Amino acid sequence: MTARLFDQLKASCKDDWEAYTKHEFVRQLATGTLPKKSFQHYLGQDYLFLIHFARAYALAAYKTTDLKEMRAAVASVDGILNTEMALHVEFCQSWNLGEADMADLPEAKATTAYTRFVLECGLAGDSLDLYVALSPCVVGYGEIGANLHKDPMTVLQSNPYASWIEMYAGDEYQSVANDAIAQLDRLAEQRLTPARLTFLEQTFRQATRLEADFWQMGLTLAT
Amino acid sequence: MTARLFDQLKASCKDDWEAYTKHEFVRQLATGTLPKKSFQHYLGQDYLFLIHFARAYALAAYKTTDLKEMRAAVASVDGILNTEMALHVEFCQSWNLGEADMADLPEAKATTAYTRFVLECGLAGDSLDLYVALSPCVVGYGEIGANLHKDPMTVLQSNPYASWIEMYAGDEYQSVANDAIAQLDRLAEQRLTPARLTFLEQTFRQATRLEADFWQMGLTLAT
Amino acid sequence: MTARLFDQLKASCKDDWEAYTKHEFVRQLATGTLPKKSFQHYLGQDYLFLIHFARAYALAAYKTTDLKEMRAAVASVDGILNTEMALHVEFCQSWNLGEADMADLPEAKATTAYTRFVLECGLAGDSLDLYVALSPCVVGYGEIGANLHKDPMTVLQSNPYASWIEMYAGDEYQSVANDAIAQLDRLAEQRLTPARLTFLEQTFRQATRLEADFWQMGLTLAT
Amino acid sequence: MTARLFDQLKASCKDDWEAYTKHEFVRQLATGTLPKKSFQHYLGQDYLFLIHFARAYALAAYKTTDLKEMRAAVASVDGILNTEMALHVEFCQSWNLGEADMADLPEAKATTAYTRFVLECGLAGDSLDLYVALSPCVVGYGEIGANLHKDPMTVLQSNPYASWIEMYAGDEYQSVANDAIAQLDRLAEQRLTPARLTFLEQTFRQATRLEADFWQMGLTLAT
Repeated sequence: MTARLFDQLKASCKDDWEAYTKHEFVRQLATGTLPKKSFQHYLGQDYLFLIHFARAYALAAYKTTDLKEMRAAVASVDGILNTEMALHVEFCQSWNLGEADMADLPEAKATTAYTRFVLECGLAGDSLDLYVALSPCVVGYGEIGANLHKDPMTVLQSNPYASWIEMYAGDEYQSVANDAIAQLDRLAEQRLTPARLTFLEQTFRQATRLEADFWQMGLTLAT
Repeated sequence: MTARLFDQLKASCKDDWEAYTKHEFVRQLATGTLPKKSFQHYLGQDYLFLIHFARAYALAAYKTTDLKEMRAAVASVDGILNTEMALHVEFCQSWNLGEADMADLPEAKATTAYTRFVLECGLAGDSLDLYVALSPCVVGYGEIGANLHKDPMTVLQSNPYASWIEMYAGDEYQSVANDAIAQLDRLAEQRLTPARLTFLEQTFRQATRLEADFWQMGLTLAT
Repeated sequence: MTARLFDQLKASCKDDWEAYTKHEFVRQLATGTLPKKSFQHYLGQDYLFLIHFARAYALAAYKTTDLKEMRAAVASVDGILNTEMALHVEFCQSWNLGEADMADLPEAKATTAYTRFVLECGLAGDSLDLYVALSPCVVGYGEIGANLHKDPMTVLQSNPYASWIEMYAGDEYQSVANDAIAQLDRLAEQRLTPARLTFLEQTFRQATRLEADFWQMGLTLAT
Repeated sequence: MTARLFDQLKASCKDDWEAYTKHEFVRQLATGTLPKKSFQHYLGQDYLFLIHFARAYALAAYKTTDLKEMRAAVASVDGILNTEMALHVEFCQSWNLGEADMADLPEAKATTAYTRFVLECGLAGDSLDLYVALSPCVVGYGEIGANLHKDPMTVLQSNPYASWIEMYAGDEYQSVANDAIAQLDRLAEQRLTPARLTFLEQTFRQATRLEADFWQMGLTLAT
């Protein structure tokens, strides 16, 4: 397989990928014009999102007996629970959102929709199904961060969202995203068949659309 | 336990329950003013919905070793796959929707959201979690059918949706809904604790909200 | 793919397959010399086995969205719960084992071992993993029945186990076994890769060994 | 609840608990008379066992949304994969078993039986079912270690197995075992009902019996 699976998946739903990665929420982040309330709403739901994201990697760890894959999945859970969430909490505090507030937030429908779709893909199918469903988030955020960072329209000075952009454009997150792309290829080598590709493209597309809805939720303050 | 679990759950989210069972889509069904396109869109997605609903009962059959419960769950899968879907296909044909058209429909986000939420509740938790998540649909449709049927505002003559109303108001479906209520009580006797109630109320509320979104999807032709 | 997957799997663990299909329990069934107590013990555990077997097909129904595959899996659950178990109960009564006695039997370790291995394969992996783990039982019993029936050493007259042999050698069961072989090939077309074959061979071999242990449990009255 | 759930479970299957915790393998460990081959066979299978044990805690992490419980479960996976397995590998090297040898070992039936039983309990049921199935191992090893350590019959000098006994009798492992007992009580507070107790006792008893079989496998070099 010469083409990377992630590129094939992305190419199969160009318009949806564009609608997600260049969503109005993202544009307003870039220019710093996003209403503070929208960002706060997004951040609070992202906290709940991360809990289910950690569960997805725990599920991935359960679904393999390959020690290397298990260790990678558990490192992801650990990273989310013990590093990413702490950073998130810190970041939220600078936006006047305390951790207790967030834990008590009712889950917005858009948060439920994407997270449960991912988890259920992994339970009905195998690890490849699960990681494909996760990839629009993991890899997409890296692409969004990198795009914004190099886009001349992006404002980094006096933009309250500059640190968010820099986090996802930064080397550390870019390497997380690249690892996720490489892992899809490793799994594809093990388990991809031509017959599965169409199904995986549908999974990827729906996950991408549900991610776009997550931005939309932030923009419209949907619950 | 004297109060029925279903009644407790419903009482815990009155406004959401009202927003679902008295949704504008339902009102327009009752008066026959719902645009044909909305109903067709709803019907097509309901076909996809039923597939995942059948999967949820198959999951319930897996999750028990009690023969009586297994047989009931399998009878539900069988009823959905071999009776309800056939009726549905027949009904759709009268609305110019062929089965092949429906199987090829892309799944709307609202369809994904509710179905995967239900399935994942069942996988993360136990049978009680699963059946609570299913109940706003199974029991709710019965309540909606019965409400519409006795409501003087409902038009049954020359209403293209009269047969839909009559199906859910009919004895057969009412008995399905009552069985579902009774089964919740049986499971509650086995597995309900005061500590779980709050969590089950959250599940029930979110499922109810996702059901309301399913109507909304029909109304707005959302994909 | 010209070779049938089932044949490949069987060829990969010839000795274990032989140890299972030509187990001493099977030889004594054929000659009618198996102690009555061993057969009764086997029958009682087989009743518990069937419950988990039905659960495995329910799980298979959950794990697909292909209507044809769902209907086939549900027909298997229904067949096990409503036909096979009834026949089993009837058969057991002729051996002085009532249904209530069987439902109260403690599960022998060999019963637990094979059934949970199969179910867990299906949860950790995908449908192909699940059906491969099921196949030594479904197809193996057909092979055992057919072998015994044509073996000149087999005694069918005045053999108390003749009806058991005839059931599995009969057209009805042979067609169940053939369907299972065909389904493995259908799934292989969708999901088999060279990289997965080794893993599936390990699954098949372990399932075969656990099936042999099930005979051994009957022979030694192990609990 | 005044009585600890673990004590109730243990009291419900006294003979099986005794047969497990005072198994001949354990007695021979205590006196240092266990054949080296038996211990090596046990160690190799225990390596495979730990992989599935780590998967069980990963599954537990998936099955909750409570951050404290998730962190505890993930710490267990991490502890098993990155500390316990490393110690195990080191220990095995002193017994001439290299890690590569162990990863290539075919899984013995007794290893499959206990591990898949535990995992499947967790998938069919909820976290309480899962942790109850895990407890004979986690807590049992602590009890065995402590018993041996205080038993005057135990030989600690010139016993090649002294370090094994000291590891499980040591403060670190004793505190792991006590945490597991406390966690059962926390889960029981959330999810235990009188109706579930009988079922949990059956789970506990079968898990205990399968653990005894694991010792037996070591003793008889069963594969």
